[in-house]
Amino acid sequence: MSSSAFSTHGATLAPEQRKTFGDSNNSDFFHNKKNHVSMSCPNNGRLLSKDRIQCKALEVQSHHTFLKGEKFQLEDVIEAQQFDRDTLSAIFEVAREMETIEKKSQSHGSQLLNGYLMATLFYEPSTRTRLSFESAMKRLGGEVLTTENAREFSSAAKGETLEDSIRTVEGYSDIIVMRHFESGAARRAAMTANIPVINAGDGPGQHPTQALLDVYTIEREIGKLDGIKVGLVGDLANGRTVRSLAYLLAKYNDVKIYFVSPEVVKMKEDIKEYLTLKGVEWEESADLKEVASKCDVVYQTRIQKERFGERSDLYEEAHGKYIIDRDVLGVMQKHAIVMHPLPRLDEITVDVDGDPRAAYFRQAKNGLYIRMALLKLLLVGW
Amino acid sequence: MSSSAFSTHGATLAPEQRKTFGDSNNSDFFHNKKNHVSMSCPNNGRLLSKDRIQCKALEVQSHHTFLKGEKFQLEDVIEAQQFDRDTLSAIFEVAREMETIEKKSQSHGSQLLNGYLMATLFYEPSTRTRLSFESAMKRLGGEVLTTENAREFSSAAKGETLEDSIRTVEGYSDIIVMRHFESGAARRAAMTANIPVINAGDGPGQHPTQALLDVYTIEREIGKLDGIKVGLVGDLANGRTVRSLAYLLAKYNDVKIYFVSPEVVKMKEDIKEYLTLKGVEWEESADLKEVASKCDVVYQTRIQKERFGERSDLYEEAHGKYIIDRDVLGVMQKHAIVMHPLPRLDEITVDVDGDPRAAYFRQAKNGLYIRMALLKLLLVGW
Amino acid sequence: MSSSAFSTHGATLAPEQRKTFGDSNNSDFFHNKKNHVSMSCPNNGRLLSKDRIQCKALEVQSHHTFLKGEKFQLEDVIEAQQFDRDTLSAIFEVAREMETIEKKSQSHGSQLLNGYLMATLFYEPSTRTRLSFESAMKRLGGEVLTTENAREFSSAAKGETLEDSIRTVEGYSDIIVMRHFESGAARRAAMTANIPVINAGDGPGQHPTQALLDVYTIEREIGKLDGIKVGLVGDLANGRTVRSLAYLLAKYNDVKIYFVSPEVVKMKEDIKEYLTLKGVEWEESADLKEVASKCDVVYQTRIQKERFGERSDLYEEAHGKYIIDRDVLGVMQKHAIVMHPLPRLDEITVDVDGDPRAAYFRQAKNGLYIRMALLKLLLVGW
Repeated sequence: MSSSAFSTHGATLAPEQRKTFGDSNNSDFFHNKKNHVSMSCPNNGRLLSKDRIQCKALEVQSHHTFLKGEKFQLEDVIEAQQFDRDTLSAIFEVAREMETIEKKSQSHGSQLLNGYLMATLFYEPSTRTRLSFESAMKRLGGEVLTTENAREFSSAAKGETLEDSIRTVEGYSDIIVMRHFESGAARRAAMTANIPVINAGDGPGQHPTQALLDVYTIEREIGKLDGIKVGLVGDLANGRTVRSLAYLLAKYNDVKIYFVSPEVVKMKEDIKEYLTLKGVEWEESADLKEVASKCDVVYQTRIQKERFGERSDLYEEAHGKYIIDRDVLGVMQKHAIVMHPLPRLDEITVDVDGDPRAAYFRQAKNGLYIRMALLKLLLVGW
Repeated sequence: MSSSAFSTHGATLAPEQRKTFGDSNNSDFFHNKKNHVSMSCPNNGRLLSKDRIQCKALEVQSHHTFLKGEKFQLEDVIEAQQFDRDTLSAIFEVAREMETIEKKSQSHGSQLLNGYLMATLFYEPSTRTRLSFESAMKRLGGEVLTTENAREFSSAAKGETLEDSIRTVEGYSDIIVMRHFESGAARRAAMTANIPVINAGDGPGQHPTQALLDVYTIEREIGKLDGIKVGLVGDLANGRTVRSLAYLLAKYNDVKIYFVSPEVVKMKEDIKEYLTLKGVEWEESADLKEVASKCDVVYQTRIQKERFGERSDLYEEAHGKYIIDRDVLGVMQKHAIVMHPLPRLDEITVDVDGDPRAAYFRQAKNGLYIRMALLKLLLVGW
Repeated sequence: MSSSAFSTHGATLAPEQRKTFGDSNNSDFFHNKKNHVSMSCPNNGRLLSKDRIQCKALEVQSHHTFLKGEKFQLEDVIEAQQFDRDTLSAIFEVAREMETIEKKSQSHGSQLLNGYLMATLFYEPSTRTRLSFESAMKRLGGEVLTTENAREFSSAAKGETLEDSIRTVEGYSDIIVMRHFESGAARRAAMTANIPVINAGDGPGQHPTQALLDVYTIEREIGKLDGIKVGLVGDLANGRTVRSLAYLLAKYNDVKIYFVSPEVVKMKEDIKEYLTLKGVEWEESADLKEVASKCDVVYQTRIQKERFGERSDLYEEAHGKYIIDRDVLGVMQKHAIVMHPLPRLDEITVDVDGDPRAAYFRQAKNGLYIRMALLKLLLVGW
């Protein structure tokens, strides 16, 4: 969108704080976007009125450092790394309000986003994610343009660039929710668009709203994030979800992480090194029950068969190794929860579903509240 | 949804009446659903507020037997058999109101379902049925989440169960309209969901809203259902529509049914036996004109080529045998009508379309009113 | 829809004027539609109330000739030829109002088409066009039923006619926007439907809203249409867009057209003859820069690789021949513009995008305003 993907209202950021946004060598993206936009702007350098309003807002705000709960300006949602814990906390606060709005939607349909139009531009189908975003928009009174056929825009035969497609679609809508098969596509879209862009998954890259809903679920269910013990179970090598979650948990204090996974799909070194660097305690274990008995959160994931190619023997071995069933539930603490990003196969047995600690369907529902919160923050601000 | 798929408000049902709902060995489904839901409820046994409201409604209603036109509580629409004639009559009454609402929608858009969200979860595309349901919802001021890609949820690769998909989607919407390729899928969905489910066709199984709109059309056009004479023509062996219609007509008095079909696609014995059991007079005839001259309703159907495999000679013979053209129309009574579930090929010639007795496009339109009525009844009640 | 695809309110048209509507041997279509509808009307000859209102409007209007800006009645949008310059001018006037409505949609969502339902019936996917129409409808407060699966209606297996599909869909909606793979399909739909039909492209046939947005863009950017100089560049043989544009420009005075194209995709004789007949000056040139320096509008198009089959050598030669880059921009006048129907490959280099004269994304956006204007005119009239 405009000046940066994320900034406080008028806050002057210390270098340390800046790092928490980009938290990588991506900071040039977040800080140079406006320049780029101006350079090749389809509106011939004339800023859209909305940009102007935001720029103005940036100017008139008083200058103090960024504090928890303070108003902030969210402009695009591209990757989990762009959020620091204060921003996460602020988003979660809005998500809680969204729960209230959603619960009374039948008697008092919200008009918060009345007059706003969201384009769900899906270059590959993902029905679950799409319906969640579209429900979020409609629960707030907004409207939706939808396509699961977005490859049309860029078909090999016609060869249009993503940037050109975005420039067309931004003329029809107020916000773009994009799913793409290529890593980095969401960032390219955000750099092009003069309206907010939300990354709904870009190939092997990022799926930041999933990461947000996972952290939100832990806070919502356990009541805190500092000091929690989390067991990550299953496919830790390929699971985008658990990698993002580990990354975000490192922002909190006194977190302990247990990795429980078959040998072939162990958590990779980069995340382990990152956790060590951030002072997060972690250990690997082969004893699911022992880990489950200690943890606040047991986060199970699906072993992805497609990663094993012809080695179905390896898959079968890995797949059956760590199942969450009533026995595992039996050793878990009363306040603890079982999470899963869904879809599941049988890595959690169906008889676990009825237990109050089975949080995975509530977790899916939290995706709705997080997406409602993000749409609200991106379109009408705090 | 909750306690049963269908029940009167507070009515104590005699065994005979109960039979009319389930009318089969399915009654355990309709009466045990709530127990099942509690057992494996994703909300951990906490009832949704809507369930609570409905339960309360059940309690406060006075106790008397079920009478025509009385208020009732509809919770899911799974199969034609769940409706008795009083319920049908009550639904038709609401459908008539819906005609009025739809006709003034341009000047006075209805807000009856404002704030409600319907998910059309189609595991196989059926554009006609989907558009009819979505139009119904929107004509009442409601909103729609739509997918014709629902197989995504349960792709072989990912292997999610229908039950898990339903638990996710019910978090995003207030009612689910489902089309599925497997018989019995709608019932499984309804047993899982804490929100109402409408079966929009489940494979070779049921398509109850089609059956309802057929009966509604007869009542609307002829003015009565008792004492009518109906000719069922064409593919009576494979046609889900005519089988359901014969079944529902058996609920009325003094109905006479004529079967007119090529030898290879004759009405099967089970329906004939059922009609005999219910005291419905029926006969088979090879003389379409003679039947047409006696009937109030001539219900034509398409011979389904795909059923004949390589025997295209048999298809050709069957297909050309009973055509409704202006000659047939010529012998029909003035008040009689021609019906067809559509799509048609040439089993009704195009020059019949202009005759007032050609009721098939009005019949399609009645599907809209029936679906509006069901959405209203399921979401806000009588 | 009803009596004719286009007529002034009560105006008695001179033969000359009539010709401007049909402008071909199609006039029987526009003038005989009502008769046809009555003959095979699914409503049994009973006119829909909306038809009656329109007929009445026709009667009560005073009788004078058709003048620029006068009220008129638009009933279907089937082909570019149906519009004369006064009608175009009137539509453009409404499109300007639509710009204002769209710009304040976030603060004051328009309710102009509240209660109206548009069916986008796409027999082949065209995401860009579909989203543009759906955005237009929603920006005016209307609702949308959508399908990119419309072939379902007419699958070879089932064999339903387009006419039958239209009669069903018109029961669910207030206006049909149709994309079809067969030339003439939109006209057949309009002859059948009792509600307005807009052609969103029918195979190699027409795409009238694209033609309208092109002319609107020229008027909007250059400020006039009489006396302009337009360079048409690229694939002039196969480009539906440039052919329609040349046709429409012939309705204005003192227009000069330059054709700049590789030999293999030269403008065809029929258009050249038509222009000559209408007194429009035109010439062919191989010097893009010289043409660019003289023109008000340089209209670039994509060379369609798929037309060259196996002769990829010919494609490569044609494709690289006339590129608009900063050099070409350098010789263009300050007030001139570059247009392109999109999608583009590299026939306009990306570094042109930032120049104020690059009008192609504004042109795409104008499609929204034109479609809003047409929906408004067709549904609620002037």
